[in-house]
Amino acid sequence: MVGKRATRFPQEEPPSVVAFLNGQTHLVTIDLGPGLVTSDVISTGSGYPILTNDDMATALEVTYSNLEFNKSILARGVDFDDLTCITPSSGWFGPEEEGKRIVKVQCFSNQDTPNFYMRPIEGLTVTVDIDKKEVIRIIDTGRGIPVPKATHTDYTYTTNSPFSDKAPMTNPMSMEQPKGPSFNVNGHTVKWANWVFHLKPDIRAGMIISQAMIRAEDGEYRSVMYKGFASELFVPYMDPDQAWYFKSFMDAGEFGLGSTAMPLLELNDCPRYAYYMDGVFASADGRPFIQSNMICIFERYAGDVGWRHSEIPVMGFNIRESRPKVTLVARMVASVGNYDYIFDWEFQTDGLIRIKVGLSGMLMVKGTLYENIHDISNTNTMTGPLVSENVIGVVHDHFISFHLDMDIDGANNSFAQVNLVKEQTLSGQSPRKSYLKTKRNVAKTEDDAKIKLKLYDPSEFHVFNPSRLSRLGNPTGYKIVPGGTAASLLDLDDPPQIRAAFTNNQIWVTPHNKSEEWAGGLLVSQSKGEDTLATWSARNREIENKDIVLWYTLGFHHIPCQEDFPVMPTVSSSFELKPVNFFDRNPIMGVKPTFQNDLPVCSVASSY
Amino acid sequence: MVGKRATRFPQEEPPSVVAFLNGQTHLVTIDLGPGLVTSDVISTGSGYPILTNDDMATALEVTYSNLEFNKSILARGVDFDDLTCITPSSGWFGPEEEGKRIVKVQCFSNQDTPNFYMRPIEGLTVTVDIDKKEVIRIIDTGRGIPVPKATHTDYTYTTNSPFSDKAPMTNPMSMEQPKGPSFNVNGHTVKWANWVFHLKPDIRAGMIISQAMIRAEDGEYRSVMYKGFASELFVPYMDPDQAWYFKSFMDAGEFGLGSTAMPLLELNDCPRYAYYMDGVFASADGRPFIQSNMICIFERYAGDVGWRHSEIPVMGFNIRESRPKVTLVARMVASVGNYDYIFDWEFQTDGLIRIKVGLSGMLMVKGTLYENIHDISNTNTMTGPLVSENVIGVVHDHFISFHLDMDIDGANNSFAQVNLVKEQTLSGQSPRKSYLKTKRNVAKTEDDAKIKLKLYDPSEFHVFNPSRLSRLGNPTGYKIVPGGTAASLLDLDDPPQIRAAFTNNQIWVTPHNKSEEWAGGLLVSQSKGEDTLATWSARNREIENKDIVLWYTLGFHHIPCQEDFPVMPTVSSSFELKPVNFFDRNPIMGVKPTFQNDLPVCSVASSY
Repeated sequence: MVGKRATRFPQEEPPSVVAFLNGQTHLVTIDLGPGLVTSDVISTGSGYPILTNDDMATALEVTYSNLEFNKSILARGVDFDDLTCITPSSGWFGPEEEGKRIVKVQCFSNQDTPNFYMRPIEGLTVTVDIDKKEVIRIIDTGRGIPVPKATHTDYTYTTNSPFSDKAPMTNPMSMEQPKGPSFNVNGHTVKWANWVFHLKPDIRAGMIISQAMIRAEDGEYRSVMYKGFASELFVPYMDPDQAWYFKSFMDAGEFGLGSTAMPLLELNDCPRYAYYMDGVFASADGRPFIQSNMICIFERYAGDVGWRHSEIPVMGFNIRESRPKVTLVARMVASVGNYDYIFDWEFQTDGLIRIKVGLSGMLMVKGTLYENIHDISNTNTMTGPLVSENVIGVVHDHFISFHLDMDIDGANNSFAQVNLVKEQTLSGQSPRKSYLKTKRNVAKTEDDAKIKLKLYDPSEFHVFNPSRLSRLGNPTGYKIVPGGTAASLLDLDDPPQIRAAFTNNQIWVTPHNKSEEWAGGLLVSQSKGEDTLATWSARNREIENKDIVLWYTLGFHHIPCQEDFPVMPTVSSSFELKPVNFFDRNPIMGVKPTFQNDLPVCSVASSY
Repeated sequence: MVGKRATRFPQEEPPSVVAFLNGQTHLVTIDLGPGLVTSDVISTGSGYPILTNDDMATALEVTYSNLEFNKSILARGVDFDDLTCITPSSGWFGPEEEGKRIVKVQCFSNQDTPNFYMRPIEGLTVTVDIDKKEVIRIIDTGRGIPVPKATHTDYTYTTNSPFSDKAPMTNPMSMEQPKGPSFNVNGHTVKWANWVFHLKPDIRAGMIISQAMIRAEDGEYRSVMYKGFASELFVPYMDPDQAWYFKSFMDAGEFGLGSTAMPLLELNDCPRYAYYMDGVFASADGRPFIQSNMICIFERYAGDVGWRHSEIPVMGFNIRESRPKVTLVARMVASVGNYDYIFDWEFQTDGLIRIKVGLSGMLMVKGTLYENIHDISNTNTMTGPLVSENVIGVVHDHFISFHLDMDIDGANNSFAQVNLVKEQTLSGQSPRKSYLKTKRNVAKTEDDAKIKLKLYDPSEFHVFNPSRLSRLGNPTGYKIVPGGTAASLLDLDDPPQIRAAFTNNQIWVTPHNKSEEWAGGLLVSQSKGEDTLATWSARNREIENKDIVLWYTLGFHHIPCQEDFPVMPTVSSSFELKPVNFFDRNPIMGVKPTFQNDLPVCSVASSY
């Protein structure tokens, strides 16, 4: 087990409770023993707590009872019974909207479809002060733009609906486990194969993995990660229009990935034999509520190979060895308004952890006069492609920043960039002119570990324990392996980018500090960006042989297309945490192959 | 169906047979009708055909009967009965070895282990002329370096062997299909869900997918790809030493991905219910031989989500919709000596094709005096990390170049780079300072489509049909979506890089030319690199609205680690071909969810 949380540097204790009362944000610390409030600090910086369901309901009520708004809706020819409005966060764009809690309200027609998102009432934006319960401003610029039709927008399945017989159909499949799953969950502790970790539903991060440990060959459980979670999710839309410029969402801090995690749909969101875990959170009034079936845990066998080798006959060995790959997945889905974010933490027996984010749900679309590209004289005025008649899919990005408090064999770790550098051979040294060589640079301070990934200047990125060497003298470590990703290209001084400055690099390393958990700051709604990973890290603190936190931001550029209408096929990307000289050798060499008798005998369900 | 192969520009007919006889390479064209040789051209350029098993056996025989070699082995203290030798290709490094067919021979001890790869006899390299059947040169520099021990190198499973009870174990799992698989194979035509394609085993490419078509909503089968396959595989090792400099393998052209594809191991290489396809190839003497169970085809359900959406309660809709993702995989594994390359073509019902390459098998390792890092005074002299006592895992790269002859709705296509460019807003235009905008540039000639991927200058890459517009007026297309990849950093004028110049860019587009199939050239062994994708493409031909071929190279940098010893856990990377405005809307919206009754009733096997 890991000795943890020695206070090596002064740390601000993060609040137990963030509460908003009478226009003030209270950061409250509570001692659960005696049941006392030990500290109640009123925030003086920018930013407000997560918007609650009550806040959103308030914004809608205020809007619905506003006369000017009602006139606009009437003028659009939309029936009030068909109206659905959403409450996008306002971001921060200067002093005008400071000092009050603001949300925007924008509306849609749900006539003939539950997929109101595809029927925007374009250009109508209501700005609401949710504490004063008043409309501050209504901008109504798009009255000439028709509400797009409902045709082909309803994606819901009901046994009554005549579903397309042209849809691609496959026979049912199921991952079956004749002897049952191999994991067990005790409270929040998950034990599976050689892994054990703690899994906690969280109203903001959605899902927190902590104290992840893996068993080595000698039976010792060794620490890999103290804590890992999605810290912030930045979604800037690429449209400067009045009804669009503010859409630069910080979903974790503004809405909460856990508070928007609806119950998972059994057999579809997660396979059979999944274990479902509830979340228990506080409502706006402090009372608990249950987010049921919020996380699922399941084993995966996808036909993949853990390792294998065959020998070609000329070598004289008749070798055909292969081992199936079985993994464990913890999954949570945040439905932040239109978008669904599928978060997977996948654990492999070889020590690898894959963190995957899948995007589905609905596009945020913009109404337009045009039904066809050929009607548009200047497509350069469009901020995204036409994805249906009168519907533009506005270009946008997604950035998900992960807080990864690695504890490789203990709290004190270092970060090394293992750079692959081209070397030139000397004349006459070799028939080769060039080759690559590794240069290992251990980061001393935070500035050494602010990494922009480069295809033509590649590196591995290791978190290692300088005090624990392998049998061969290599430091034990894990590397972070980026997959497909994207970088933010916005101006560094653009307000959304200042607030989401954690996207200025793909990798950062900070010394552990209890109050530095949220990459976009503790109080994100309308924050000015003075409490972000970038501001903390500007101090350029020492990070060598310390309790360090690795931050990785996974990015997506999304240029929509017709296939994203009216609901998007899942798009995924991932990154990996992978052992590097952590084990003395391949830790799954001893795994058994699958034999015919291991497999179940199955038949169709009797009631089929 | 697609009207194809109109000869729009002069095309050299590729040979039906490449044969090596009496020191000459014959490029023979045959008319199967009358059974006549219509052309027999003797190659005058550099390069030789794929090395055959006979060639390799010859090289070994010549070596084993060489006195000096035998003395060296004796001096190393290796018993002849324990000797296993391999035949790495020699590459091309100038005039010295030109004009004769050369392979290198290097040897290992298989004493106490079938994993001889981990027991190199370091520094001993025999150069053999396989046609003259004579040893040209023996270099023996490493006599002081011990042969690494056999300890912990045997990875084979036998029911007799006492397997580690410390290995991470999971209960058996199986992807079960109570109503059977949904695909059928008729000869080489595979039909599944909305896809139909032709699948051909190939001695060089391993597996060729052709005439891939997908059914649209109106029932029409629409062309996506005329032909796709792994065209070349370049593996340069990063060590300039005499025994290592030449290791710059071109595995498809030197050894053949199909000729090294051993029978797949049922239930482990591929899941239950997989269909296995044999390859029938020609031996060195022209007689057919069967590569049995060389390709498997199976359906995959991995617990993933095709699309989904939940609505948060405040919106007033109780929506929980999710659809499981079932895909079809065609798999082939090439065991090119020590390395195993797992090639997957995965088809999704939403139109996406994922091409994945997994790497497993054994490292190519180098013997060293050292048992521990601390014994090494200057680790800078090492060309890779110590992965076991006396064993260095030499740093290397893998580049797999795919030939993707896209035919989106017909043969004539264009290539567009859809660049995401930062735009600055005008003063007063918007509270936002910046946003991204797409700039679509259609490539006119090959030079416009030589792409180096850039994280900070991102683009989408579309192949589209300029003559077929969607309902909305968008051209129908597919985009290539790179995932994690790597670029070659070797000098452009380094001989291995000249030969593998297809790695100079990640993406290329060429006009279709029948004779331009192999990115490293038709005759690769000892080629000088005058017949590669880079030389063809230097002509800068027109590629707009033509039958075009997209080339993508997937790359891996591999810095070995202890976990790769003695057999490597699979490392994978992939890229995708994805519809973009090809369908009018999400093509899997009508797919049914899974219900309890769809799932099988399973029990453990009776003999369990």
